[in-house]
Amino acid sequence: MDYDLIVVGKGPAGLSAALNAAIRKNKVLVIGKDSKALSKSPSIKNYLGFKDIKGDDLYQRFLEQIKYYDIDIKDKKIKAVYAMGDYFAVDFGDEMLKSKACIIATGIDMGKVIEGEDKFFAKGISYCATCDASLYKGRDVVVIGYNEESIEEVEFINKVAKNTTFINMYKKNIKLSSNINIVDERPLKFDGLIKAESLELSDGSKIRADGFFIIKSSSKPKNLVPSVKMDEKHILVDKDMKTNIRGLFACGDITGKPYQINKACGEGQVAGLNASSYIRNVSRETK
Amino acid sequence: MDYDLIVVGKGPAGLSAALNAAIRKNKVLVIGKDSKALSKSPSIKNYLGFKDIKGDDLYQRFLEQIKYYDIDIKDKKIKAVYAMGDYFAVDFGDEMLKSKACIIATGIDMGKVIEGEDKFFAKGISYCATCDASLYKGRDVVVIGYNEESIEEVEFINKVAKNTTFINMYKKNIKLSSNINIVDERPLKFDGLIKAESLELSDGSKIRADGFFIIKSSSKPKNLVPSVKMDEKHILVDKDMKTNIRGLFACGDITGKPYQINKACGEGQVAGLNASSYIRNVSRETK
Ligand SMILES: Cc1cc2nc3c(=O)[nH]c(=O)nc-3n(C[C@H](O)[C@H](O)[C@H](O)COP(=O)(O)OP(=O)(O)OC[C@H]3O[C@@H](n4cnc5c(N)ncnc54)[C@H](O)[C@@H]3O)c2cc1C
Ligand SMILES: Cc1cc2nc3c(=O)[nH]c(=O)nc-3n(C[C@H](O)[C@H](O)[C@H](O)COP(=O)(O)OP(=O)(O)OC[C@H]3O[C@@H](n4cnc5c(N)ncnc54)[C@H](O)[C@@H]3O)c2cc1C
Repeated sequence: MDYDLIVVGKGPAGLSAALNAAIRKNKVLVIGKDSKALSKSPSIKNYLGFKDIKGDDLYQRFLEQIKYYDIDIKDKKIKAVYAMGDYFAVDFGDEMLKSKACIIATGIDMGKVIEGEDKFFAKGISYCATCDASLYKGRDVVVIGYNEESIEEVEFINKVAKNTTFINMYKKNIKLSSNINIVDERPLKFDGLIKAESLELSDGSKIRADGFFIIKSSSKPKNLVPSVKMDEKHILVDKDMKTNIRGLFACGDITGKPYQINKACGEGQVAGLNASSYIRNVSRETK
Repeated sequence: MDYDLIVVGKGPAGLSAALNAAIRKNKVLVIGKDSKALSKSPSIKNYLGFKDIKGDDLYQRFLEQIKYYDIDIKDKKIKAVYAMGDYFAVDFGDEMLKSKACIIATGIDMGKVIEGEDKFFAKGISYCATCDASLYKGRDVVVIGYNEESIEEVEFINKVAKNTTFINMYKKNIKLSSNINIVDERPLKFDGLIKAESLELSDGSKIRADGFFIIKSSSKPKNLVPSVKMDEKHILVDKDMKTNIRGLFACGDITGKPYQINKACGEGQVAGLNASSYIRNVSRETK
């Protein structure tokens, strides 16, 4: 076993879960990029303890605090979490890590779904470049990028792909390698037979490609953990933050409204403590 | 209507609820004494945002923060909350206040129940001196005191009662008016026919009295809100922090484990925001 607990998500929910589990002496890994939602908040007045604080300042305090504990951090994106019965396998595309328990705290994606996106998921559509780029060696690839991270991702893909197109939803003047084709139209619809073959844009044009990457800050929970039970677009949890899968917990925006920091931290605490009890019990059983 | 929202409890859960409801422009009253649980914590390491902080320092920050909003505070204890259908009546014994919505955040009482305590509740046994002292004018009264507050309470009762006995569970050298009889034995059992008439102590002796007051920092939810639905000793809530009573919410330790500050603040936030939606809706209906 690589870890007692793997927490997917480095926002307030994931950090609170990790902190509480680490205080209970568990070996913890936190996976995720910096929380966009938190670091973008210009002024937070409703997190008890701070009259008025910039999101990024609060976030830095959170990150600073967990440095005092034995918590590993991986600044990466994952492809999926597989529930293997008595352990979890976390899939990074290029490596796989195992843990006794797992907490999903990947936040919520406010963006719209592109028509056909769900239909072709894993059939030519992927959310993680580092995970799946190798599948498209020497092929034509389209990257739909919504955030800063997508710049890094498209450059990575461009190293292996034949032709790379970047659909720029990040809305800033961006600089990319000269052989990447930058498109400023909005993506409307995926088409194809068994797999996604083309993408229709807001100007009516269509781009054909072998693979399409959608790079957002949040993943769809159903794609991340295939068998998890949902309550519409949120992961269904009970008051202990347990999901339908034994040993799998969820917390923060992903479990439902209100989308707020104190709620995320509180649920993270509950998830972290209950995951700790779970780990203690399974460790005892297998002795 | 005196208030949009009355929050019973001035701990982290109640303050977070009040803060979030006040930000939504509701007229809010918070009722309660200083949180013993929070101010006693010697060192808090698991409230995200603070590496290591004394409970009382964190509490002062919370209290300071809510001063910036239009939130009234009453440093009192209440006797009961009555659900009147479309409003709530909060009973202080000597006055009654009305609100559209109500949040219970009275924390949890860790102490043991005295035998017969539940049987004789409101039949010679009371939890609130300022509420019920007047009933025992010229009578014999026993006060079982577990905290600092009970000193103030017994002195108050002593002004109206004929004979006052103080069962000292507060475990410190205390100074009381010379006509108060201080007893250092533990209370074991209430006896009586229709109402509590005597209390048996750990040395086997019995004290007879007309009224018995039990002064703890927390109230039993069932006594506070007669018709509220419980889950063993906790108030039953759904994920929106709603109770079985329309317009009544609960949050913090009173809704269940883990008994922790971040969980209390998170639930307070959810309760405060959902109470705000409720208030907005009933205000619209009655227009
Ligand atoms: C502009 C703005 C202002 C806001 N203002 C406030 C405010 O004033 N008060 C307030 O309480 N809230 C505010 N919020 C909301 C608050 O930021 C969120 O509720 C909070 O950040 C949610 O925390 P979370 O941990 O659930 O998710 P997030 O903070 O969204 O974190 C999600 C984490 O999951 C990671 N992740 C996602 N997918 C993957 C994957 N596949 N692999 C690995 N990691 C993954 C991300 O990289 C990130 O680390 C605001 C939000 C925004 C956008
Ligand atoms: C010694 C100690 C150490 C702790 N350490 C930690 C820690 O390190 N980390 C952590 O997260 N948690 C810790 N806790 C737990 C934490 O303090 C509680 O979880 C938290 O205070 C619960 O908040 P609450 O708002 O639900 O209730 P409380 O903080 O208990 O507040 C209850 C409020 O309700 C009021 N009230 C009760 N009855 C009535 C009534 N009839 N009328 C009016 N008002 C009423 C009280 O006066 C008070 O204001 C500790 C607790 C203790 C005792």
